[in-house]
Amino acid sequence: MPNPTAAMLVIGDEILSGRTRDANMHYLAGKLTEHGIDLKEVRVVSDDAPAIETAVIALSKSYDHVFTSGGIGPTHDDITADCIARAFDDHIDIRDDARDLLAAHYARQGQEFNAARQRMARIPDHATLIDNPVSIAPGFTLENVHVMAGVPSVFKAMVDSVIPDLTGGAPLQSRSIRIERGEGEIAGPLGQLANKNADLSFGSYPFIQNGIFGANIVIRGTDPARLDAAVQTLSQLFSEDI
Amino acid sequence: MPNPTAAMLVIGDEILSGRTRDANMHYLAGKLTEHGIDLKEVRVVSDDAPAIETAVIALSKSYDHVFTSGGIGPTHDDITADCIARAFDDHIDIRDDARDLLAAHYARQGQEFNAARQRMARIPDHATLIDNPVSIAPGFTLENVHVMAGVPSVFKAMVDSVIPDLTGGAPLQSRSIRIERGEGEIAGPLGQLANKNADLSFGSYPFIQNGIFGANIVIRGTDPARLDAAVQTLSQLFSEDI
Repeated sequence: MPNPTAAMLVIGDEILSGRTRDANMHYLAGKLTEHGIDLKEVRVVSDDAPAIETAVIALSKSYDHVFTSGGIGPTHDDITADCIARAFDDHIDIRDDARDLLAAHYARQGQEFNAARQRMARIPDHATLIDNPVSIAPGFTLENVHVMAGVPSVFKAMVDSVIPDLTGGAPLQSRSIRIERGEGEIAGPLGQLANKNADLSFGSYPFIQNGIFGANIVIRGTDPARLDAAVQTLSQLFSEDI
Repeated sequence: MPNPTAAMLVIGDEILSGRTRDANMHYLAGKLTEHGIDLKEVRVVSDDAPAIETAVIALSKSYDHVFTSGGIGPTHDDITADCIARAFDDHIDIRDDARDLLAAHYARQGQEFNAARQRMARIPDHATLIDNPVSIAPGFTLENVHVMAGVPSVFKAMVDSVIPDLTGGAPLQSRSIRIERGEGEIAGPLGQLANKNADLSFGSYPFIQNGIFGANIVIRGTDPARLDAAVQTLSQLFSEDI
């Protein structure tokens, strides 16, 4: 049975303007791979309601899971929760369970639970909450979409809350070999090896380092023995350059 | 007149598997912002022909420019050039101009210009070449799609070759203020300020650092005087927390 599939939707003008470097994609990709869910596509869109809704609907139809990052805080530019509700035609308002979590948190901190903070309790009627041990304001899952904060420490905590409960497949494993020879000389033998091992995927990632051209060859698959055999064949072919 | 728009398509299994962290998005985003072209969307897809073709066609129709990264080397997994040709129904084969560049390069290096390396001269008939001062193998522009290598040093060099020739708009400028107060207390005044300044965009990017909750407020627009005025208003509102 093939692994479940996933897409990620990053919501953030700050990434598209080059102000901020996205940090969440790499974390989610690694966690999904470990869990046997194949991340097939990532989209980054701006903090713009039609862009968010169109992307959520398209990704939700095409993949088993969608993970979103960003735009669920208390400020005017945090429009993700409302967009997700609209995308699934669900009603959204301040929900008692989320409000109780936040009210208790701000009471403990001696801070006012004002209108802006109550906005973080806006959760669609049919969503389930995602635990946020870092800053309490919850994420949520609606249909197959998992809605999470953009702040990296909070995003990570939410991913760690969500993923263990999802059905995973066979974890994709990989082996890599660094070959210090130009990709153009590796290409022929590598292509032949890839042809003979259709169950494995062979990626070649060239590098230039201190004037040396080379490539990291990454072999991916779910059967460790098959991976080891392929690594051995490659190592013998390029024994002088490893 | 609104600025020209752009999308980026990153092609790479290695990014989707979490093995590699994308480095090119951030560079391109910064360069486009400087040049007055608005990056509106980024997609990351795997090294899979239908996925690449579908994304290229969709993005090419929706935005003024599309910049792709990855998959134009000599190995079997480098399928981008062929996918772009198919997406635009153009013929592709080894082209004389690209072959001449590469043949001269490998002759200078005393290396064999073998079949795999000749593959890097596969360029669609109606494309124009993009200069690659780092490793010679050219990128290309076909219709409104600029096809570039994934290796960061080569990607950067190609972006620097392409962007100066594109028509830019008003460079988006930004000002940021760091406010050490919870986003929930900034949200109200910030929302009001955003309402009063519809020509500017106000982003709030929360952080948690050494137990301090705060937010970086980023104000974006094309008129420096308007930006400065908005910064001054915000600074006065939160003078104790800056």
